[in-house]
Amino acid sequence: MLKKKQPKLRIIPLGGQEEVGRNMMLIECDRDIVIVDMGLQFPEEDMPGIDYIIPNISYLRGKENYIRGVIITHGHYDHIGAIPHLIPRLGNPTIFTMKLTRGIIEKRQEDFKSKEKLNIYTISPSDILKLGCFKVEFFRVNHNIPDAIGVVIHTPQGIIVHIGDFKFDAYPVGEEPMDKSQLTKLEKQGVLALCSDSTRAEEKGYQISEKVIGETLEKIVKEAKARVIIGSFASLLSRVQQIVWIAEKLGRKIALDGYSMKTNVEIAKKLGYLKIKKGTLIMIRQAKKLPDNKVIILCTGAQGEERAVLMRIANREHRQIEIEKEDTVIFSSSVVPGNERTVQRLKDSLARQGADIIDYDMMDVHTGGHALGEDLKELIQLLKPRYFIPVEGHYSFLKAHAKLAESAGVKPQNNLVADNGQIIEFADGKGVLTKKHIPADYVMVDGLGTIDSKNIVLRDRKMLAADGMFVIIVTIEGKTGKLVTNPDIISRGFVYMKEEKKLIENTRAKVKKILKTKNTTKRAANYAYIKNKIRNDIGQFLFSKTERRPMILPVVIEV
Amino acid sequence: MLKKKQPKLRIIPLGGQEEVGRNMMLIECDRDIVIVDMGLQFPEEDMPGIDYIIPNISYLRGKENYIRGVIITHGHYDHIGAIPHLIPRLGNPTIFTMKLTRGIIEKRQEDFKSKEKLNIYTISPSDILKLGCFKVEFFRVNHNIPDAIGVVIHTPQGIIVHIGDFKFDAYPVGEEPMDKSQLTKLEKQGVLALCSDSTRAEEKGYQISEKVIGETLEKIVKEAKARVIIGSFASLLSRVQQIVWIAEKLGRKIALDGYSMKTNVEIAKKLGYLKIKKGTLIMIRQAKKLPDNKVIILCTGAQGEERAVLMRIANREHRQIEIEKEDTVIFSSSVVPGNERTVQRLKDSLARQGADIIDYDMMDVHTGGHALGEDLKELIQLLKPRYFIPVEGHYSFLKAHAKLAESAGVKPQNNLVADNGQIIEFADGKGVLTKKHIPADYVMVDGLGTIDSKNIVLRDRKMLAADGMFVIIVTIEGKTGKLVTNPDIISRGFVYMKEEKKLIENTRAKVKKILKTKNTTKRAANYAYIKNKIRNDIGQFLFSKTERRPMILPVVIEV
Repeated sequence: MLKKKQPKLRIIPLGGQEEVGRNMMLIECDRDIVIVDMGLQFPEEDMPGIDYIIPNISYLRGKENYIRGVIITHGHYDHIGAIPHLIPRLGNPTIFTMKLTRGIIEKRQEDFKSKEKLNIYTISPSDILKLGCFKVEFFRVNHNIPDAIGVVIHTPQGIIVHIGDFKFDAYPVGEEPMDKSQLTKLEKQGVLALCSDSTRAEEKGYQISEKVIGETLEKIVKEAKARVIIGSFASLLSRVQQIVWIAEKLGRKIALDGYSMKTNVEIAKKLGYLKIKKGTLIMIRQAKKLPDNKVIILCTGAQGEERAVLMRIANREHRQIEIEKEDTVIFSSSVVPGNERTVQRLKDSLARQGADIIDYDMMDVHTGGHALGEDLKELIQLLKPRYFIPVEGHYSFLKAHAKLAESAGVKPQNNLVADNGQIIEFADGKGVLTKKHIPADYVMVDGLGTIDSKNIVLRDRKMLAADGMFVIIVTIEGKTGKLVTNPDIISRGFVYMKEEKKLIENTRAKVKKILKTKNTTKRAANYAYIKNKIRNDIGQFLFSKTERRPMILPVVIEV
Repeated sequence: MLKKKQPKLRIIPLGGQEEVGRNMMLIECDRDIVIVDMGLQFPEEDMPGIDYIIPNISYLRGKENYIRGVIITHGHYDHIGAIPHLIPRLGNPTIFTMKLTRGIIEKRQEDFKSKEKLNIYTISPSDILKLGCFKVEFFRVNHNIPDAIGVVIHTPQGIIVHIGDFKFDAYPVGEEPMDKSQLTKLEKQGVLALCSDSTRAEEKGYQISEKVIGETLEKIVKEAKARVIIGSFASLLSRVQQIVWIAEKLGRKIALDGYSMKTNVEIAKKLGYLKIKKGTLIMIRQAKKLPDNKVIILCTGAQGEERAVLMRIANREHRQIEIEKEDTVIFSSSVVPGNERTVQRLKDSLARQGADIIDYDMMDVHTGGHALGEDLKELIQLLKPRYFIPVEGHYSFLKAHAKLAESAGVKPQNNLVADNGQIIEFADGKGVLTKKHIPADYVMVDGLGTIDSKNIVLRDRKMLAADGMFVIIVTIEGKTGKLVTNPDIISRGFVYMKEEKKLIENTRAKVKKILKTKNTTKRAANYAYIKNKIRNDIGQFLFSKTERRPMILPVVIEV
């Protein structure tokens, strides 16, 4: 008797494989799709005006009905941030996640009032879900935010484990250490493929415990003579908890500042994920009445974000806080690439005003919360997956992770290092990194709309940014093709117009000359020709005078 | 008898005190001014279109005749880069520098053909110059480019030592170790103030020798199976020399690529600063005929510069070189802040094409070439200056350097940590960090002109970059105030116009409505009013539809 052939399984990372951020993965089998995570990525330097980048979901167009669920591993923006933008375009599928993650997702959704209400189902780690042909289970992992989970997907081809963001932590903050025996159980069942967190795969050794991070932090606060101002990420809830405990132990009060800090703490407190004694949290105006050595200010802005609290303090634009001599400012400062100079300026400015600056890398979201090389190997050894799929990181991170997997026993040919959009296929239990790609290029969110990477808007912005623009308006009498008025010139971002009157006058004269030449008068109706001639000749003229290339925009108005 | 009072001495850093780059210092006494260095700084992320930043010399306007000389300590861009821009505006004063530095300055000047010829006087370290009331001497220091010097300025107030960029190196490349006995001699004469290099003052320990750097590099090249491609800074001539020696020792040939790499090597070779055996250097097309393990390609672009060699190779745009399996690409990769993401992408792209990527921090211009904490203390202990002026670095670097000086015996109150433009004054041998500032804000070079930080051009560029622009042209009949044609709309960098025809149509309708309301018709002649109304109303309208704020430019044309 012929055994029925199982349908092929496809694993497709839509984002997170060529960057840190916008994590999203599809698990597809026949007409069933499960999505793991839906994150955003912060824009790069060459994306002016862009708020953030989200995964490209054009592959899912027409497949909305096959989506059986969206599983969110934890509440950080690189895992939840694209939800308000993508969920409505996917037919509002159900989101499955833990309680705290749900709270954070729902709070954020309030900023997108026009959107449909989300369908969220709160899971517990012991739940077993049936999502189409998939059976899905969960296990708790430790990270630096509570309620992080790993996902086990039983597929017709075998078991896929997606670990999410994790660290091994014998002494985590406010929750139990991860139960490694669950991994052993999975190993017994046989794991077809493991998708694992590459964020810090290039680093050797073992990650330290959250407890150690807390102890170091306590020492810093203890030694501070006066006020302590801590700039941190609002989403680093484990760290917030530790700061609360430290304050309570050392007899300090905490004033929170910054919108995201306040709302995240509020949610986590309400849902029981932050233990804070009554009276520990105070308002900033109360803090001013306390002795300086009784105060911690916990705020946003350690990455030098323009409108965040630390920047406003540094610029003396904060209404209630200004730096005093003996203030200690602690930076969670493993700086996000691209922010280095801004953060350096921020620190220098605070230091000039008299603050003691302390860098405290371990507080960083991407420093303390992720497994390092040896941890990653241990995970692989525990699960013994047949195939290994490194996820979350730049190519060099994934490659380093694949090397670790090899040394942990994965066969080299079973290391599947995929680019964004590259399809991994399993058939008859055999995995292949195919050469097929689905669209995975950038989708950039700007205000209410999006901009895709092929579209001209961003290219124009970059041109405008580099050398500004130069609009030339000629008003022409339709019949005669003669100029009716002096050409109008509007320029911004090119030269300082007040100081370049002569250049503008010469340009105007040149435009007139172009319009007077026989050649052009003959072709008066041929405005495209006139426009081209103006664009080319004036472009060259301006370059010869300035070595700048503004965007030249000729306009012909016929009256 | 009354001893004649000595004139006051002023030391004013014009740049380099709040950044890494644009080093320039004035030493002024009565009507004599000596300038040390004239560097540029690379632009920051929020300076679109800017080529680089140079020191602000407005303080020197009217004082051109007092400038007795410009001393250049060595040939790196952060010390020579502003010369073509500033020297002509300072009345072409004489530049005093060593032979190699002169060669590099003159070569660069060829890119500025329109400028006057420079007056350069080649010094030798044993020279003594009389520059106005100043007597100036020199001593050789080690760095990572030959011919670096420290400067000793005998002033009426006492001896000022400016060390330039330096490291202590017992085994430098191609030159003698610095003669520390000269420092001891200076100490005997009594040093009033020392200006010293803070670039790496935040790092503990001692800097390693160039020799060690070379040995590590040799090991990497030795282990490479096939071609070695080294991306480096062209100005790191000591490293170039080492790579030449390594190639000669290991039987490889070197193909140079990249304009600055080729010209710098050419100058240094011509002037006798690079020892290269005949036949070591080959053309790239020759390299293709050799076995891969006999070739080193030494090129520019390790910082991910857009048009440099490595980037062109990565983008498969290089006409002669493409990555082959087993290629080893070595990055001098202590990445300049701001370039992190670009460099990561560059590395990933080369790795995807099959190259082995090796990061080699020690090759970096700002890593290996500068004294670390313990070295800096040793210098201070050798010279025993009464006053200490940390230079070259962000505020936090200078502050760290001042702390080192304290631990090396400088009195805390004699640590003079100045901002850019802040005047340090010595009178009766007593030094004060005054509260007086001369202009030291950014002067940005863009093409043939400059942009200063108060000027609106850069602000406009940033606005244009963020949300683009939206030009609205209304043609009005002068007598009646009526619209003659449909309003014209030109927009770039705002929305994708092809997809937003409806938005544009609605905007046009809104503009017409604004022009039809009684209120405006009455004021037909008052074009300022119409423009303002269009700017405000259309701005709000577009924001409500898109949450973007393009720069709105209304133009009224009267016919």
